[in-house]
Amino acid sequence: MAQDLTRDLMDLIERGRDRQLRLAVTGLSRAGKTAFLTSLVDQLRHSGLEARLDLLSAAREARLLGAQRVAQQDLGVPRFPFDQARAALEETPPRWPEPTRGISELRLKIRYRPARQAWLRPETTELTLDLFDYPGEWLLDLPLLEHDYLSWSQAQFADAGPARRSMLASFYAEVEELTPDAEIDEARLAAISEHYAEGLRAAREAGFSDLQPGRFLLPGELQGAPVLQFFPLPGLAEQDAETLDKLPEASVYAQLAKRFAYYQSHIVRPFYREHFRRFDRQIVLVDVLGALNAGPERFEDLSRALTRLMQSFNYGQRSLFSRLFTPRIDRLAIAATKADHVTPEQHQHLVALLEALLAEPLKNLKYANIPVKALSLASIRATEAREVSHQGHSTPALKGTTLDGESLLTFPGEVPSRLPTADFWTRQGFDFIAFRPQQAAPGALPHIRMDAALEWLIGDKLT
Amino acid sequence: MAQDLTRDLMDLIERGRDRQLRLAVTGLSRAGKTAFLTSLVDQLRHSGLEARLDLLSAAREARLLGAQRVAQQDLGVPRFPFDQARAALEETPPRWPEPTRGISELRLKIRYRPARQAWLRPETTELTLDLFDYPGEWLLDLPLLEHDYLSWSQAQFADAGPARRSMLASFYAEVEELTPDAEIDEARLAAISEHYAEGLRAAREAGFSDLQPGRFLLPGELQGAPVLQFFPLPGLAEQDAETLDKLPEASVYAQLAKRFAYYQSHIVRPFYREHFRRFDRQIVLVDVLGALNAGPERFEDLSRALTRLMQSFNYGQRSLFSRLFTPRIDRLAIAATKADHVTPEQHQHLVALLEALLAEPLKNLKYANIPVKALSLASIRATEAREVSHQGHSTPALKGTTLDGESLLTFPGEVPSRLPTADFWTRQGFDFIAFRPQQAAPGALPHIRMDAALEWLIGDKLT
Repeated sequence: MAQDLTRDLMDLIERGRDRQLRLAVTGLSRAGKTAFLTSLVDQLRHSGLEARLDLLSAAREARLLGAQRVAQQDLGVPRFPFDQARAALEETPPRWPEPTRGISELRLKIRYRPARQAWLRPETTELTLDLFDYPGEWLLDLPLLEHDYLSWSQAQFADAGPARRSMLASFYAEVEELTPDAEIDEARLAAISEHYAEGLRAAREAGFSDLQPGRFLLPGELQGAPVLQFFPLPGLAEQDAETLDKLPEASVYAQLAKRFAYYQSHIVRPFYREHFRRFDRQIVLVDVLGALNAGPERFEDLSRALTRLMQSFNYGQRSLFSRLFTPRIDRLAIAATKADHVTPEQHQHLVALLEALLAEPLKNLKYANIPVKALSLASIRATEAREVSHQGHSTPALKGTTLDGESLLTFPGEVPSRLPTADFWTRQGFDFIAFRPQQAAPGALPHIRMDAALEWLIGDKLT
Repeated sequence: MAQDLTRDLMDLIERGRDRQLRLAVTGLSRAGKTAFLTSLVDQLRHSGLEARLDLLSAAREARLLGAQRVAQQDLGVPRFPFDQARAALEETPPRWPEPTRGISELRLKIRYRPARQAWLRPETTELTLDLFDYPGEWLLDLPLLEHDYLSWSQAQFADAGPARRSMLASFYAEVEELTPDAEIDEARLAAISEHYAEGLRAAREAGFSDLQPGRFLLPGELQGAPVLQFFPLPGLAEQDAETLDKLPEASVYAQLAKRFAYYQSHIVRPFYREHFRRFDRQIVLVDVLGALNAGPERFEDLSRALTRLMQSFNYGQRSLFSRLFTPRIDRLAIAATKADHVTPEQHQHLVALLEALLAEPLKNLKYANIPVKALSLASIRATEAREVSHQGHSTPALKGTTLDGESLLTFPGEVPSRLPTADFWTRQGFDFIAFRPQQAAPGALPHIRMDAALEWLIGDKLT
């Protein structure tokens, strides 16, 4: 106990000296969190020698000496599986690392020479960088804290588009026969919940992102627990609130409302309280290209999901988050990943489209005076940019290997620089191809603009 | 909140009236917990009609009206998967239900007529029965609370027999090169821990039971977390304690000791605090026949594991458990399961052997005045007892279907009624055959002495 206290105190002092930083990485499933974190650790570990990090000032000025993994703080959080991820990239043929499934953590000690040498200032110094990786889906649950069961139910039925509805068909069929005042039948509630969870899983498989409650998709040890067995009830109206609240405890409505409240207090709040509010910096990764590939309904859905997700970073005084927790994040990055899957001259469009997609949240962040930067990057570069001559014209192209092992030279298409209109979707399809990683060579992993991301996220702490 | 409080209060009142009972079922892996709980629920649900429960007085006196599943108390605990288990038994061919992997819960409301009708006493009344199922391996961790890292390390190396040692060979090879004062290398500690966990898993596969730490075998969401990445260090001596305690925080010894302490406080204690100390009654299932099949080293190991496990029920004033927690269990049963896998005249031997196996813990329980009953049972009967005439002799035999689907009429052998001696193991082998369940017929599941177990565990609450 005394030892713990001493350590916490030392930590606090370290923080005070700007020598410790907690950086979190998030994004919806398949946004590229694992690849990003693997590359970030890899770049910093090679930063003294081979890494190409010219956009990171400490590296450009040759002040960065390297980084080492050290023992993490919280023993109850899984360690980010860097070695396994790195090993996957070194296989023949190389493959993308396994995605992580919950929160994970990794601590690096970065050694560098301060920019200004001064009296009493040591020649080299250290920054402790705590890295966290967690599913963006968890942030989709924040708005759920603002609801009670009644308003949440209403919102769920209001939001779903036609494709989403069709995926929930078997749930709709079951739930329609259920009245709020029916006596509960445990087995039936469990069965209907399973239909609901199945619908959510099908929607995720089909590329949808705006899925609530997030923990239904990754139940872990709570598999089969009543807290993950609730669902929205159709046909509830605000004016019935009083009648509904008076239903006995053994009624369907009362039981579902109780489970919803338990989910809020035992699943959503603890994540914010124990993890989120302790992050200093955050990067949100977005697979813009994947959403373009998937068509208008899913693109729309991504936009809604991101707007919802970004609420967790809205620290305006009257924001939901600020009212509930004491936030700390003082700098934010949003990044369109897999930039190597389009030709280099499209990267600006990619950033513009990302900014358009996040226009509303970005406005709020600006108003709340949270510094935020949008960029495009490739954590681990899978392709090489080429020029192809065709009838005297020179066109940009990409060379890479598809996931099936086919070698390809292609021009994947143009990225729109603003939100695509209905007309746009019918006129032009998108078909960005998924490439597998290049065979790993000795030294740091090849990347695009990881150094720009690092400069924004930790650069100021390395001066 | 107010609603929660009211409910808790109601619960308290219910308890005061003897109308609520929390019954826990445990046993080491493969002892038959899932089959037992499935049968128990099934018998009570059919108790008004088809179930054969003559040894349960309330049933014999036709006062038992039936039981219904109702909503459980703790929404964060998985529900015991009764429906799935029952469905597995009804498949063609029938199969044993999937084993549960952690704690699970199920609440029954039992309706019965009180034995004595009296003025102001209702004609029918209800008992709320909360059923819990949890791995016996978790109880093996209780003694770990009495250790510090140093003494725990010593005990781990002292206990292992030759077969166990050979399973940990790759761990021993790795750990021998590690000195307590070496600087920690996170990746290496993780790798050695994995070797240790692999050794534990191999030992479990090979039929060993006395495995610590228990959570290494079922990591769940803690997979990859440092709290599950420690192991005993060889060659530590008590006289070095002072030197070891002074090692810096970045040393191997200090880090492993820290993780061990975290495991104690974050894994072991919470289970006892939040679940175990709230149980009223407990049954411990033991697969005695399986251990006889596996030979002397494993039988010895089961004996040691059971002695260790039973410490959790030793409520003597000076016992470890009583010093740490406030226990409540007021009645205990220990049962040798799978009694239908030997012929009926062997059942007495089976109980005698179980009592011999548990002689030491039973003595302690008697001294602490905890009522305990030993019995043999078959939760779900898989065989039928027959008589075979051979040369004028009539011999008992079993008729059943093996797991491979072969129909068999066999005499599986004699069960020793006392602890087998070394001589005994060489003279006589054991080879009890595993049978699959009988094809389910309408009505309650066939069983042996489930009613005796029920009478002991809940009979007094149904008067």
